Amino acid sequence: MSHVLILGGDGYLGWPTAMYFSARGFQVTVVDNYFRRNACVELNISMLYQVGTLVERAQIWRDKTGLEIKVVIADLSIPDSMRQLFDGRVRYSWAVDPSFSGIPAAVIHYAEQPSAPYSVMGYKYADITLINNLRVTNNLIWAVRDFARDTHIVKIGTMGEYGTPNIDIEEGWLEIEHKGRKDTFLFPRQASSLYHTTKIMDTDLLWFGVRTWDLKVTDLMQGPVYGIETEESKLDERLRTIFNYDEIFGTIINRFITQAVIGYPLTVYGAGGQTRGYINIIDTMQCIYQSTINPPDCRNLRIFNQITETFTANQLAELVCKVGRARGHDVSIKNVPNPRRESESHYYNPSYQGLRQIGLKPHLLNDEILHNFFDIVEHHKAAIRKDVIFSGIKW
Amino acid sequence: MSHVLILGGDGYLGWPTAMYFSARGFQVTVVDNYFRRNACVELNISMLYQVGTLVERAQIWRDKTGLEIKVVIADLSIPDSMRQLFDGRVRYSWAVDPSFSGIPAAVIHYAEQPSAPYSVMGYKYADITLINNLRVTNNLIWAVRDFARDTHIVKIGTMGEYGTPNIDIEEGWLEIEHKGRKDTFLFPRQASSLYHTTKIMDTDLLWFGVRTWDLKVTDLMQGPVYGIETEESKLDERLRTIFNYDEIFGTIINRFITQAVIGYPLTVYGAGGQTRGYINIIDTMQCIYQSTINPPDCRNLRIFNQITETFTANQLAELVCKVGRARGHDVSIKNVPNPRRESESHYYNPSYQGLRQIGLKPHLLNDEILHNFFDIVEHHKAAIRKDVIFSGIKW
Repeated sequence: MSHVLILGGDGYLGWPTAMYFSARGFQVTVVDNYFRRNACVELNISMLYQVGTLVERAQIWRDKTGLEIKVVIADLSIPDSMRQLFDGRVRYSWAVDPSFSGIPAAVIHYAEQPSAPYSVMGYKYADITLINNLRVTNNLIWAVRDFARDTHIVKIGTMGEYGTPNIDIEEGWLEIEHKGRKDTFLFPRQASSLYHTTKIMDTDLLWFGVRTWDLKVTDLMQGPVYGIETEESKLDERLRTIFNYDEIFGTIINRFITQAVIGYPLTVYGAGGQTRGYINIIDTMQCIYQSTINPPDCRNLRIFNQITETFTANQLAELVCKVGRARGHDVSIKNVPNPRRESESHYYNPSYQGLRQIGLKPHLLNDEILHNFFDIVEHHKAAIRKDVIFSGIKW
Repeated sequence: MSHVLILGGDGYLGWPTAMYFSARGFQVTVVDNYFRRNACVELNISMLYQVGTLVERAQIWRDKTGLEIKVVIADLSIPDSMRQLFDGRVRYSWAVDPSFSGIPAAVIHYAEQPSAPYSVMGYKYADITLINNLRVTNNLIWAVRDFARDTHIVKIGTMGEYGTPNIDIEEGWLEIEHKGRKDTFLFPRQASSLYHTTKIMDTDLLWFGVRTWDLKVTDLMQGPVYGIETEESKLDERLRTIFNYDEIFGTIINRFITQAVIGYPLTVYGAGGQTRGYINIIDTMQCIYQSTINPPDCRNLRIFNQITETFTANQLAELVCKVGRARGHDVSIKNVPNPRRESESHYYNPSYQGLRQIGLKPHLLNDEILHNFFDIVEHHKAAIRKDVIFSGIKW
């Protein structure tokens, strides 16, 4: 049975990914230090509903399916915590079988501080973001270099690495002709937050590791994800992933639906012409899975753009508004002064064919998906705190 | 009197830069944590001659010139140590006038771990390099953002950021045409060590700071520097800069001359066709000075390629061999298996006109310069340790 190690296994994508692989016959180990939960407590942010610890959810998963997801609670920014996962010294916080699961065939790396606003709230948060994200990635590269050269690293990147260039965005690479000579380079990257800039640096680090030590890496340039439920969480609602609806950790569609449910005007930044690529959480599961079971050759940094469609902020607000009103909510849209430094109207033409070619079957945003999403959020309406939705963090 | 803050003021370039600015009427503050000296002690590496502490050299400078260079001993990877330099809380380890010198007009940032072999010796050294270099740069950006938006950041980068692309290397930027549309981006970067990769990341961070907070930055892509003496160190040999001749911290020309003096064959890696841009330490002083007194506008990341000529490794070995033999040394050249993963024969055509346009008058490598250099190294011949020259650190 193939072993998959999931770094950041408590996160919005980490835990659903763990169940997805476990359900498909993989031996799974999740690792997290509860960074995100602790940050939410520190910043007085609540989530939509309470979520059990990794150990609690692994136990529920075991009860419901008979399958084991091993749990490690560790700070992977410390080199030795990472190395223990590869050399067998690791001690599980929970496991049915406490013996070492062995070198993983793939490592899925989500273990980063994922919020753009958090990364620019002030120098302390910038420092935390930079150090956490880069140390974890570097520690992973060195552990794979030293112990597991055949292990495939599957890394979550972000479409935000590219920014909004005035040329078509290719999947990771660009052939450049200059003064009659040619070479192929990483597609130019310029991000609009410190968080997104750390992801550019991750790509730099991974590309160095690939060129120098023949590592095998897939870097997934993902757009903002939306949704709650995955096939596996339907087994028991206690298996659901964490869900943030605040300005710091909540992604735009998740936030808009929550705002619609409590009659808080949908906050569009500036003119609302910002175009981005989006993806449903159930499609993220497919992308990660297909990337893992179809690895690249070694000495390859394979890059996919992990989105299924593009929208402007205005279009998303209108979609949520329409469905929200149909369900009887008092939904309005409010353009607020843009707290970010970004173009509010720009060219945007990304390519995103690669993941379809290896098996992704996209679920595009539609009314039915939004209605199902509203069902869950409405169920938790009483717990929604208006005060955490908009805090006006400026860049 | 304009105030210049020099981060990494104990380093090979930091201390000569401090004297250079002090001699030209600037108020100078140097900051260092003796990282390089401590690393040399840890790794059993000696320098060519003993060098006094920053405080000792600042006192000698004062005695000889009447000028004050204030000294701060601090670890700038700690955010608060950086911030104290801007908000006035700093305490000087040595100063004639202990009152705060105020917000600097320019910060010259050398405070990084500068060795490629050190950065890949193992995971601990990789972690130290990554964290030190990126935290210091990020802390500087935030201090300037928060306290000193008019301060000009002059940052030492490296030509190694570009690697050896198959197209001409421009000065930092490249206009790209793709599918009939155009945009201008940072010139593509792909470095051949982890150290050099951290410098790519520095550039990413600075470019983010410029776009987001209108910072004023000059990023200098420097090639390997050679030399010992500068105009100011001629006042008293106790003012000389630190000089490494080992494989880890010694740059190639400095190393070759030392090897020639003790009859240690000049170690050329592989075929020796590796071409790089080089610069004399006295020209580095000019480049830093001209960049500082001719600042760019705000919201500008100005990039210069800081080299004066290019050589292959074979050409450098032959130049040193010729002059060494003329002085009676038993010099030979030995091609050793390349410990690095790099091209030993490649296209290399960098542009480097910008610094001449703002006032650099280059001193190109010639026999006279090499003879003067040999004079100093021969004087310290008895102290040279053969065992530190080549340790075979592999990539």
